Amino acid sequence: MTTAYLSHHAPWGAYASFILGEFGKGGGFALSDVHSPHRNVYVAYRVKGGAVHLLPFLSAPLGLGELAYQADADGKPRAAPTVRTLPGEELERRLGWASDEWRHGPFQFRLLSPFGEVPSPGVDDEALRRAVCPVILAELALDNRESDVPAELLFALEGVNRPLSDATGGALIGAACGRAWGVAALPSPGVEEIQDFDVIGAAFGERRPRVRRLGNAGGVMLTVPAGEIGRLVLTLGTYQGGTVTSGLDTSFYYTQFFSGLEEVLAFGLAQAGHFQALATTRDEELLRSGLSEDRQFLLAHATHGYLASTQLLVREDGQPLWVVNEGEYRMINTLDLTVDQLFWELRYHPWTTRNVLDLFAERYAFTDEVKWGEERLPGGLSFTHDMGVSNVFTPPGISSYETENLDGCFSHMTFEQLTNWTLSAILYGLIADRPWLSRQGERLEACLASLLARDLDGDGIMDVDSARTGDGAEITTYDSLDASLGQARGNLYLAVKTWASLVCLEHALTILGRDGERAGRQAQRAARRITDAFEPARGYIPALLSEESDACIIPAIEALAYPFLLGLRDTVTEQGPYGALVTALRRHLTTALQPGVCLDATSGGWKLSSTSVNTWLSKIFLCQFVAEKVFGVHSDPSWDKAHVRWQRVGAAAHGPTDQVRSTDGEALGSRLYPRLVTNVLWLPQPWAGQGVFDSPCKARPDGWR
Amino acid sequence: MTTAYLSHHAPWGAYASFILGEFGKGGGFALSDVHSPHRNVYVAYRVKGGAVHLLPFLSAPLGLGELAYQADADGKPRAAPTVRTLPGEELERRLGWASDEWRHGPFQFRLLSPFGEVPSPGVDDEALRRAVCPVILAELALDNRESDVPAELLFALEGVNRPLSDATGGALIGAACGRAWGVAALPSPGVEEIQDFDVIGAAFGERRPRVRRLGNAGGVMLTVPAGEIGRLVLTLGTYQGGTVTSGLDTSFYYTQFFSGLEEVLAFGLAQAGHFQALATTRDEELLRSGLSEDRQFLLAHATHGYLASTQLLVREDGQPLWVVNEGEYRMINTLDLTVDQLFWELRYHPWTTRNVLDLFAERYAFTDEVKWGEERLPGGLSFTHDMGVSNVFTPPGISSYETENLDGCFSHMTFEQLTNWTLSAILYGLIADRPWLSRQGERLEACLASLLARDLDGDGIMDVDSARTGDGAEITTYDSLDASLGQARGNLYLAVKTWASLVCLEHALTILGRDGERAGRQAQRAARRITDAFEPARGYIPALLSEESDACIIPAIEALAYPFLLGLRDTVTEQGPYGALVTALRRHLTTALQPGVCLDATSGGWKLSSTSVNTWLSKIFLCQFVAEKVFGVHSDPSWDKAHVRWQRVGAAAHGPTDQVRSTDGEALGSRLYPRLVTNVLWLPQPWAGQGVFDSPCKARPDGWR
Repeated sequence: MTTAYLSHHAPWGAYASFILGEFGKGGGFALSDVHSPHRNVYVAYRVKGGAVHLLPFLSAPLGLGELAYQADADGKPRAAPTVRTLPGEELERRLGWASDEWRHGPFQFRLLSPFGEVPSPGVDDEALRRAVCPVILAELALDNRESDVPAELLFALEGVNRPLSDATGGALIGAACGRAWGVAALPSPGVEEIQDFDVIGAAFGERRPRVRRLGNAGGVMLTVPAGEIGRLVLTLGTYQGGTVTSGLDTSFYYTQFFSGLEEVLAFGLAQAGHFQALATTRDEELLRSGLSEDRQFLLAHATHGYLASTQLLVREDGQPLWVVNEGEYRMINTLDLTVDQLFWELRYHPWTTRNVLDLFAERYAFTDEVKWGEERLPGGLSFTHDMGVSNVFTPPGISSYETENLDGCFSHMTFEQLTNWTLSAILYGLIADRPWLSRQGERLEACLASLLARDLDGDGIMDVDSARTGDGAEITTYDSLDASLGQARGNLYLAVKTWASLVCLEHALTILGRDGERAGRQAQRAARRITDAFEPARGYIPALLSEESDACIIPAIEALAYPFLLGLRDTVTEQGPYGALVTALRRHLTTALQPGVCLDATSGGWKLSSTSVNTWLSKIFLCQFVAEKVFGVHSDPSWDKAHVRWQRVGAAAHGPTDQVRSTDGEALGSRLYPRLVTNVLWLPQPWAGQGVFDSPCKARPDGWR
Repeated sequence: MTTAYLSHHAPWGAYASFILGEFGKGGGFALSDVHSPHRNVYVAYRVKGGAVHLLPFLSAPLGLGELAYQADADGKPRAAPTVRTLPGEELERRLGWASDEWRHGPFQFRLLSPFGEVPSPGVDDEALRRAVCPVILAELALDNRESDVPAELLFALEGVNRPLSDATGGALIGAACGRAWGVAALPSPGVEEIQDFDVIGAAFGERRPRVRRLGNAGGVMLTVPAGEIGRLVLTLGTYQGGTVTSGLDTSFYYTQFFSGLEEVLAFGLAQAGHFQALATTRDEELLRSGLSEDRQFLLAHATHGYLASTQLLVREDGQPLWVVNEGEYRMINTLDLTVDQLFWELRYHPWTTRNVLDLFAERYAFTDEVKWGEERLPGGLSFTHDMGVSNVFTPPGISSYETENLDGCFSHMTFEQLTNWTLSAILYGLIADRPWLSRQGERLEACLASLLARDLDGDGIMDVDSARTGDGAEITTYDSLDASLGQARGNLYLAVKTWASLVCLEHALTILGRDGERAGRQAQRAARRITDAFEPARGYIPALLSEESDACIIPAIEALAYPFLLGLRDTVTEQGPYGALVTALRRHLTTALQPGVCLDATSGGWKLSSTSVNTWLSKIFLCQFVAEKVFGVHSDPSWDKAHVRWQRVGAAAHGPTDQVRSTDGEALGSRLYPRLVTNVLWLPQPWAGQGVFDSPCKARPDGWR
């Protein structure tokens, strides 16, 4: 399978990534964005005085930058080195959990984007400083043991405008683009700074000097003596200083630790050992995880994408503000992503989930009305879809996405966001932070009241749309899918999520010493309503509970994840209080997982809906988890193979992509997306079996370790 | 002639411009750059309920932005308004000195970029605040007097992400891109904010609301009642906060007056009357100048380009730092542009020239050696080519441009920069600031010594190259022309510039009570050397004084501008002390200004060199001034017509362009360039006849008024 797929390589919380992986399309740094700038990335080596081997990461021919200056110049002709651009097929590539490695003959090039647990601010400044430092590492190695002449290697980037030695007195070797990003090495024998329009010529050719400050490409080269292996460690760092958001003024959290780009780059090099060890730990964990190679790839690819969208900010009052941006769409803390990324965050930094939930409660909650014909009835508490877009926070109570008078994409998701906040709060609180949860009692009761207010006929599921929809109708997170998943009212996926919210509410309110029974009774009603909709003749529950529908949808089972993860195992067994529902869903799933229903007949991958070829991998991963853990489905390895193929071939140019066409994986939307880390659920949950679920309230420290 | 040429519309000193003028290519704001971002610019109107008339400023089809979200959406179909994109031929366009106006039927759209005298910092804060405020104005008008239904007009930009009313509580109406740029109006009846993916639909269609915060385009619309003329005044503003440069840390000067984008936009609207009056004053001055329509266009076009490259910064110690960036190349204060832009700056803000000269003396001067075979001899004082590139200041004594071991483009310009600093300092000092000049006595003597040190054989002109050239050779500002102008040693253009420097030095040193005679004697030697090279048989002085050359070059006369402008009229007459030189140059010019020599046989425009089709308009304008004022050449109107055609047709897509192909004006380099304002010399010099030249030293206040 081709090794030409785009990947992010991003530090945690910096909303910045170094993008690479497509052949012939370049790459480079994206800041406050996740799109590739498609600039030339020069990775090259030469052994035995032969041709320069250039990895296929250029987007434009060599040396174009200089032409604008030389309409009719008559300088000396310069001998150019022979360059061979390596065909992609000659490269070996391996994506690790925290690494990305290319090999060609004696040459190795690795990008390391280490990640791990991040302490809550205020707990351990040194650990936090390392975690938020906006750098990744590059490692290059060249085996010159079989040669009797020196060999050279080069790493350089288009878009720079200054050599780093200028501002550091030579303490750093490399190149930078203004104050924004750069690549640096420590001075060492054989290490040289390169800047030129033609960095290949400057590094491998006769031209001297090696630094021309007008040149728009630059980096670092290493000369490796004959008979040795040469190794070069680089930091690739970014710095976005000052106030970076509007609506709510914030700066990057790391600006409190680092004064500028040079300090970031130097710190990255000083701490290279720490970062390398952390990357190795993650890589080895994944290798030893027992997951198939395909699942290892899917988790590693998803992780790279998630990190690229993360952003730790600090408010003017010094409080941290966590954002996961929504991939190509750049929306801030989309709540229907928060609930899916929770699984990741509970593992490594649960306090970020709390941070998002608190900001929703503080600024993006509202008291709704619902529509009943021409009437407006009290709707209760809900939450907006998001907090803004592209570093702009929307005003309180307003999202950037939701618009009135629509019934498709861009309409309101009021009901679903209510379930998303509820589920996220309960999972976060019970698993990681009982003291926080205990302060949410009233708000959870308000969530319950709001769920109840939206069920006018008392059958447990949503009947009425938010008045905010105007003359439109509510939708779900599956906004761009067809009615089988996109419409909110009577939606099977949302009905089961409603049931799950009620089950979790019953549990949480009871633990908090509040009245959980009302939630339990409503959960029973919802379960019955859903179970009653099972059609034995068809073998599944049609996607729309109150309208004609032929669609069979996999996400009917999605929300079983939440009670399961809370350890409420009896609620998701066929022998438990909701046994009839679980049985109906088991049979539903059996029907769904057949070729031509929800297995794509061409590719063999999962289709979320039998009536759409638009399918979403983050949700597939989550539903695979439920299918396997709750229903004991034995995963067919061909399914994962198809999903890998979608990412590595169909959507390869768009990085980790959520929405793809099920026939071939072509990207249909949600490109460069963070949500795919739902597949971290394939790993054992670190909190499982620790007795945190059903015991009486107990305090847990900030920063789940 | 086509009206489709790109223009900058820029406030003074903000290194930011709103770019518009090409058809089908969009435009938009460029910050710390002068390249068009090629984003959609929506300028549209509708009368009598007919089709929406859209000016041809889109670079992409309508509504593309939304597609990424809607792979398979099933929202309500929306009625789209009928849109007619106006063919460029239907538009009338008029570029004024401080305005740019498009008309179509009842609709008028104007961009105002007013400019004028700018006081030196510390003299008049209020005037300076207005001068540096980073805004321009847009005015739209729609005549709806002949209709009985309301009409609408729209101005909107692609790339926004927030409505301005959010952050201002409705005090401003419009849209912004983060904290960086925006367009604003004051609230007023009929004025509405627009934001959407499809702003045409939002403004003219059925869709509501008119603000969708996820939409990537936005601006302002105005509804004009039946029977009225509607007028809308907008500010288009930018804000680049924080430290923006590296190498030398500086911020934009205006950040001391304005805290952010909203304040800039509001100030622009509050001061709209001032800005409109200032633009009108400039427009009318040009209209009444007596210049031909062609020359008016060339000056107006040049002015727009110059302003786009200007940048007033403030250093950490509070001192102002003036930069003119070098067009598409973005080099900082290129000294061979400073000497040409001096004519403009002496008119409006001479203190900026002093600022640049002082920074060259402080940081970018060096003591040179020259090469004599293998020997290195003392070379004396000189100056670097520039101070850095793209907001990066190079280390002291180093330019971004100059590189060793070359003999063409990118080599050193040491000798020419020595003449450039000398001439600029003397013109600035004598015309605008005698006290400053009186402090430069020693430095001017060092300049003279350096000129002498580079003339080993005592014939008055340069013999030896700077040791900085390594095994290469010095070049001139005409770097990308052929040897007739590009090579420094023995170059006729540079020889006359050397003579002019010596003449000016003699004058200045004498006024300062120092020994000017040594300069005068050397000027005589240079004059003789040049005069002796006149070849009567050919009728001109070949371009290379020490080598075979057939080239006849117009810039042989260029440097006569300096003594002429200093009022040293006797030095540039055939009856004066350099009469033989002036006679030779008059005959040279007569030969040059013949078809097939330096008049392009195809276009009729001026070719700087008979041996190259690469010709430079800024230098043509300067040489036209000399030809007319010094030699009494009667300008053939067809020459200016050809030059207009080069800018409006050949290089139209590249904005004000310096280097063009003389046959058809195709851009060969130096696009989006500031230097074309040499043509301000076509206007009377405000300092002429004020007796500032030959009188004993007298103090002049800062900030020439």
